[in-house]
Amino acid sequence: MAGAAEDLKVLGTKQSMFTQRVVWALKLKGVEYEFIEEDLVHKSSLLLALNPVHKKVPVLVHDGKPIAESKIILEYLDETWKERPLLPEDPRERANVRFWAAFIDDKLMEASKKAFVSTGDDRAKAMESTMEGLKLLEQELQGKKYFSGDEGIGYFDIVAGWIAYWLQFIEEIGGFKVMESTKFPCLDAWIKNFLQVPSVKQSLPSPDKLLNVFGAIRMAMQNEII
Amino acid sequence: MAGAAEDLKVLGTKQSMFTQRVVWALKLKGVEYEFIEEDLVHKSSLLLALNPVHKKVPVLVHDGKPIAESKIILEYLDETWKERPLLPEDPRERANVRFWAAFIDDKLMEASKKAFVSTGDDRAKAMESTMEGLKLLEQELQGKKYFSGDEGIGYFDIVAGWIAYWLQFIEEIGGFKVMESTKFPCLDAWIKNFLQVPSVKQSLPSPDKLLNVFGAIRMAMQNEII
Repeated sequence: MAGAAEDLKVLGTKQSMFTQRVVWALKLKGVEYEFIEEDLVHKSSLLLALNPVHKKVPVLVHDGKPIAESKIILEYLDETWKERPLLPEDPRERANVRFWAAFIDDKLMEASKKAFVSTGDDRAKAMESTMEGLKLLEQELQGKKYFSGDEGIGYFDIVAGWIAYWLQFIEEIGGFKVMESTKFPCLDAWIKNFLQVPSVKQSLPSPDKLLNVFGAIRMAMQNEII
Repeated sequence: MAGAAEDLKVLGTKQSMFTQRVVWALKLKGVEYEFIEEDLVHKSSLLLALNPVHKKVPVLVHDGKPIAESKIILEYLDETWKERPLLPEDPRERANVRFWAAFIDDKLMEASKKAFVSTGDDRAKAMESTMEGLKLLEQELQGKKYFSGDEGIGYFDIVAGWIAYWLQFIEEIGGFKVMESTKFPCLDAWIKNFLQVPSVKQSLPSPDKLLNVFGAIRMAMQNEII
């Protein structure tokens, strides 16, 4: 199961928080891969062929065969390259991190998307939901350096990773603020620790590019193009 | 890891397609459990205490500790009681069934919910999306008795299970039709085969009760109560 000799590609964009989950996992595991930068405005025929259902990045291509959806890719990587596990071993703890990962994607991200694109009462409601979600994560972090414990980051941290970096740009372009260090001191400390992890630090997109991307996304969402 | 002696409870309702996923899995594995019927109109303080984030069934309680979210419970059961595996062993096949399970819950179920509650153009669009989803599943079934292969049902079939039984009542109460046997012959054959599996057959809710439940859900959705 050695990584270096295998044919492993990641189709993604440097700005995509979902793509970076896969990149961080591969770096943590020390598995070599080729990164293929996608242009999401003009999606490549390769991307459309490899992920015909969702037509989205990231796609992991291992020995020519594609795997899509970032959380599913993380589980695949953990099952295929067992060194430096990302998920805990205990079934109950595995269920717990999967629960929070689903919560982050299905509830927290949806709420912050709504806050990003809406106005007035809708925005106030969406901001409140986002803050309720952050509060639950704050509780999960009590007494721990990372969501995955004190030893290092894992699956839970990787899925939560967008909160550490992307959220500030979402807030800036959206014109709202939910992540206050005084309200969420554990999350605030986690953000600082998480961004210092070498595998993460090495591959963060530049602020300018992210601001551009979120500006374009907001315009598209408000015009119901996406 | 023997099941019978352990303290295992399922909080759920017989009508809930998500609860039945857990029931089917436990029956397939031959693990004994106690079923606690919930009243979703007046949720018990037990349910609210065990699943404070989502306040939803099913919840599996193993030795006093709760696990929520049906797909996550299925993975937990498979990792804890390894006899009669529900997920395939190969990481790539595991990724494939997880991909389709997520597709079923996130895309197909959402589309059919929209068809159920909307009218006019919105309904036509939602019906089209639902049928596109069914078409993709039809392709996945080509040449197989079950989604999980010819040997027996597994995780993929269990997650798709609502299509085999609940969908007809959703269609009846919603006043639309998407699952046509002539359009989806493989799915049609799978439905018949799936409903003959003893673990499934034993625990299907009665049509009257399901029609009542979906009638109430539709009224609540249309009045934006839920």
